[in-house]
Amino acid sequence: MRKDYPAPKVGEDEALVGVHTAGVCSTDLEMLKGYMDFRGVLGHEFVGHVVEGPKGWQGKRVVAQINCVCGRCRMCKSGLSNHCPNRTVIGIDGRDGVFAEYVSLPVGNLHEVPVAVSDTEAVFVEPLAAAFQIARQVRFAPSDRVVVLGDGRLGQLIVRVLRLHVSELVLVGKHPSKMEAAQKVGADTVALADFRPSAEADVVVDATGSPSGLELAMRAVRPRGTIVLKSTYADRGACNLAPVVIGEITIVGSRCGPFADAIDALAHRRVDVSGLVSDRFALSEAVCALRTANKPDSIKVLIDVGC
Amino acid sequence: MRKDYPAPKVGEDEALVGVHTAGVCSTDLEMLKGYMDFRGVLGHEFVGHVVEGPKGWQGKRVVAQINCVCGRCRMCKSGLSNHCPNRTVIGIDGRDGVFAEYVSLPVGNLHEVPVAVSDTEAVFVEPLAAAFQIARQVRFAPSDRVVVLGDGRLGQLIVRVLRLHVSELVLVGKHPSKMEAAQKVGADTVALADFRPSAEADVVVDATGSPSGLELAMRAVRPRGTIVLKSTYADRGACNLAPVVIGEITIVGSRCGPFADAIDALAHRRVDVSGLVSDRFALSEAVCALRTANKPDSIKVLIDVGC
Repeated sequence: MRKDYPAPKVGEDEALVGVHTAGVCSTDLEMLKGYMDFRGVLGHEFVGHVVEGPKGWQGKRVVAQINCVCGRCRMCKSGLSNHCPNRTVIGIDGRDGVFAEYVSLPVGNLHEVPVAVSDTEAVFVEPLAAAFQIARQVRFAPSDRVVVLGDGRLGQLIVRVLRLHVSELVLVGKHPSKMEAAQKVGADTVALADFRPSAEADVVVDATGSPSGLELAMRAVRPRGTIVLKSTYADRGACNLAPVVIGEITIVGSRCGPFADAIDALAHRRVDVSGLVSDRFALSEAVCALRTANKPDSIKVLIDVGC
Repeated sequence: MRKDYPAPKVGEDEALVGVHTAGVCSTDLEMLKGYMDFRGVLGHEFVGHVVEGPKGWQGKRVVAQINCVCGRCRMCKSGLSNHCPNRTVIGIDGRDGVFAEYVSLPVGNLHEVPVAVSDTEAVFVEPLAAAFQIARQVRFAPSDRVVVLGDGRLGQLIVRVLRLHVSELVLVGKHPSKMEAAQKVGADTVALADFRPSAEADVVVDATGSPSGLELAMRAVRPRGTIVLKSTYADRGACNLAPVVIGEITIVGSRCGPFADAIDALAHRRVDVSGLVSDRFALSEAVCALRTANKPDSIKVLIDVGC
């Protein structure tokens, strides 16, 4: 264990987890710009194993839900524990994250990773669950026309999930190599420069990570259609939601999702995340990993901790 | 008929309507600031009578839906004719409005006003229908906590409709006389200066007519709650929808609504619009009427045309 930062304290109902591999998320990069005003260890996507914890969990390979909740409040009791107002969030809010050898986590947050899912795949469980959340919130008809804005980390996972629900799926991107990765799993792609929004999409998912995404989504969605917002960012953009009122559009904010859906989809090969890892770094190179993840042609950057 | 503006041309399937009384809406005031870039006769809230038209309509007292649609496009054929991309909108987009002695209107847009509804009440049908639209789009539980932001023209009508659906209804306003008008119909009121948003409302309706309304709504609504946007305005505000993503909030844009619901509620005294008319002017004083409608203590300003 490193000497330059305190070792994690393992609280009641918590387990100490040794991190195998962690993933860099756009949220990590936004936080470096000031989003959430966080101080501590970054990182919330990972796979590891239980070093210390309840007997049944010892040695198990695990991933973990990122919202650490109280279990007693109105939100927790109504099945919306991800929105617990007393929550801490791994590597995001009030709790150290996984860009470290060891991390302490509530046992209730752990999900065992089945043998059929490799470590490299398991790192995708958290963001893939976030993509599956869209299908929990929006009822898709197979004939729906769906546009996904953004060919980045999250956009890639979203097209992989939504192609299980609809056949007319277009990814709007900026980077030829990323658009190719989406084509390989069955999505049509259009370069942003060539995209002519025509107010015809039934559902538009904004995974651009930029304030301009919403503006484009408002032009692409049909009247009475749905825009799903997946991006959080530090910037404030100029915006006028008059088109939302005029078109009676519904905007659905969407955040974390069901781990079980993501693990199951990976284990049964319904979602293919191969080809999404663009770089791997050692933990000692974490700063370089974050810099690389900021580059336009990067998809998923992994940090191999190797505990 | 005035000589300084061309008399309305009555097209096929249209009726010529003599205007009795018209109402000033916040949209009219926004349009004077540049919203919709409209040139022509303003005004879309009115009651009048049919001067020229099909035999069955002659002499009938009428109000009219404001969206004049093609009846042939995908939207019209799927029952969403208010969103017809080929539409003109009375006094708002591509068609002269009702701040005039006479206006030509599609016969299909007319609704007869029953005897039980006075002219002064009938002027409220169009904005009251817009308030009823909220109840068509959002499924309310009687136990829902609902907050309406804005004590103006539309906010007043919205509390009158929503009190038919929920018991815990709070109007956040700025003007003592307007808040009193809402109290009289059974809403609780809080002055904006005293309002402490606590992320607990199940539904928040933004009828502030200002970009700051959305920001306040995002702080007042609970996680997974719903914000209804009713305001269109010309300004672009700085905004960041990260709270919508984090709280998985749904934003529902809401515009025009069902005339039948509004006429029925007025005829059966389920909604009381008495006390909402703050001033009346003659058509020759229309400029003064618009100025007066812009004043903070004005609720509904009427223009008595008297045809």
